Amino acid sequence: MAKPILSCMHCQNPPYITIRHHRQRLCRKHYIRWFQDKTDRTTQKYGMFDHKARILVAVSGGKDSLALWDALLRRGFAAEGLFIDLGIGAADGFSARSLAAIRLFLEKEHPAAPLHVVSLRESCGATLPELARGEARGRKKPCALCGLIKRHIMNEFPLKNGFTALATGHTLDDEAAILLRNVIHWECGYLGRQGPVLEESPGFIRRVKPFVRFFENEIAAYVRARNIVPVTLECPWSAKASTNRYKQLLARHEEEAPGASLHFYQQFLDARAGGRVVFPAQKAQQLAPCCSCGTPTNTGDSCAYCRMLERRAARGRRTARSDTPDP
Amino acid sequence: MAKPILSCMHCQNPPYITIRHHRQRLCRKHYIRWFQDKTDRTTQKYGMFDHKARILVAVSGGKDSLALWDALLRRGFAAEGLFIDLGIGAADGFSARSLAAIRLFLEKEHPAAPLHVVSLRESCGATLPELARGEARGRKKPCALCGLIKRHIMNEFPLKNGFTALATGHTLDDEAAILLRNVIHWECGYLGRQGPVLEESPGFIRRVKPFVRFFENEIAAYVRARNIVPVTLECPWSAKASTNRYKQLLARHEEEAPGASLHFYQQFLDARAGGRVVFPAQKAQQLAPCCSCGTPTNTGDSCAYCRMLERRAARGRRTARSDTPDP
Repeated sequence: MAKPILSCMHCQNPPYITIRHHRQRLCRKHYIRWFQDKTDRTTQKYGMFDHKARILVAVSGGKDSLALWDALLRRGFAAEGLFIDLGIGAADGFSARSLAAIRLFLEKEHPAAPLHVVSLRESCGATLPELARGEARGRKKPCALCGLIKRHIMNEFPLKNGFTALATGHTLDDEAAILLRNVIHWECGYLGRQGPVLEESPGFIRRVKPFVRFFENEIAAYVRARNIVPVTLECPWSAKASTNRYKQLLARHEEEAPGASLHFYQQFLDARAGGRVVFPAQKAQQLAPCCSCGTPTNTGDSCAYCRMLERRAARGRRTARSDTPDP
Repeated sequence: MAKPILSCMHCQNPPYITIRHHRQRLCRKHYIRWFQDKTDRTTQKYGMFDHKARILVAVSGGKDSLALWDALLRRGFAAEGLFIDLGIGAADGFSARSLAAIRLFLEKEHPAAPLHVVSLRESCGATLPELARGEARGRKKPCALCGLIKRHIMNEFPLKNGFTALATGHTLDDEAAILLRNVIHWECGYLGRQGPVLEESPGFIRRVKPFVRFFENEIAAYVRARNIVPVTLECPWSAKASTNRYKQLLARHEEEAPGASLHFYQQFLDARAGGRVVFPAQKAQQLAPCCSCGTPTNTGDSCAYCRMLERRAARGRRTARSDTPDP
């Protein structure tokens, strides 16, 4: 007997996707609607922002951030984009192709959406690989330095330009992997803060993660359904990122216990919200504005980002002196 | 050039084992000494018991519990053994062979050490497989029922016979796997209690785990060094035990991050002891003595163990009635 052909749950169209853990079988059009609805519900559930907010979306050119920007724009949010040009690779390398993917996406879908580009070469006088070569740590794997720089810019830029919140495309896979890493190392400070929303505080922008309830494959399906073409190159260092190790562990666990990552992350948020687990705030660190850029820091002097730039400037002066011929 | 042959760190004997994370290279004799010393140090570190204590060791016939009993007896502790004969397998099956391994161990090494055997067939009138067949849950995988029965006997027996503490052979691998399971499910009640010592309370024996700082392979090396022969059969259901899944996850993580399980478990104990993570006790459950056996229970009636026995007795009466011929 021929197998009955099941259609979309809401219309007669052929199904585009079946989401087992939500018991949804949807055509392309209704999947797009479901995805955008769920993004809306997540922003409401966690009180992330409303339609009056000016949102800055950190876009990398990858599927997660393009999908996020697209979903927010489609739902009428005032969402602008921020791309940090790290200068990784040559003229057709990772950074250049990432920016090209974003520009193509805008041209096709949202020609009026503002994109802000911060170039490391312009703002720091050097690309990420150049900065990493000068630093004692990170020469082989500049991920920590990259994180420091991106965190700095993703905080300073929206603050200086009057945005309400910075939105990032962190997925459930990302968040569960970070949670697992924080738990394996019992990083109680991070465990006390990790969540869909990091509230603003003096000198720090509000940070929100509207995709914390989506698995990566759900986002990939949305991107395909919307004909968005993210950058296909991966960052040359991404395979070494430690988060990947925890993602792989959770992926193996998911094989035997489907939905385990969602359960793990949600139970954590619930247990913390319900006071069943408490991470008492440690002695508050004394923060004072960085003497160069004004970002709050506990160093009592320049922040880590400005110190990195100062070290680079000092190396430049030493090189210049050693170039000077003896009198 | 010939590679230099390295000897034991303490004598000229050839090395038996190298323990990388402790930077120890030891001959057989010094490994045995190191292992017993470390067992002593663990019992002291966590204040488990002293030489005046009467300790009951839960012995299964496997390597962990035989090694534990051996190390405690070698160091002069008053340690008696408790074997629960679950009746798994035929006359040469798992339970029978386990008991035979224990008797052989005693005969060879500690002929004067008292072994107490509690047989399910004698105390409950049925073996574990027979009990499991009657229960709605656990027919295919009696692990939960087995846990219930063992917990009950391992509490009641030492209490009734005046022991100070019950010692089990839980290893670091066991404890880290249980911790991971508790964290993945955010079982905050268990997370608040899990540790090397579970203090006594009215109706509950003190429980201690002197091997929480040994990896399983360290115990296997001790057993080989001491020529102890544990039972080689595994429980026919052990492959299905959920703890194994978490052990495998941690084993994979250890491959890339050696010592990670030790770090994970130790950091947890330190963070909890230092108040960096708190699991507030939930509303204390009202415990009252079981009306059959007296073990504290929150059912307000019989404990789970006695109810299981009552269900079995009721089934027996029904069968007897249905066997009675019609008048």
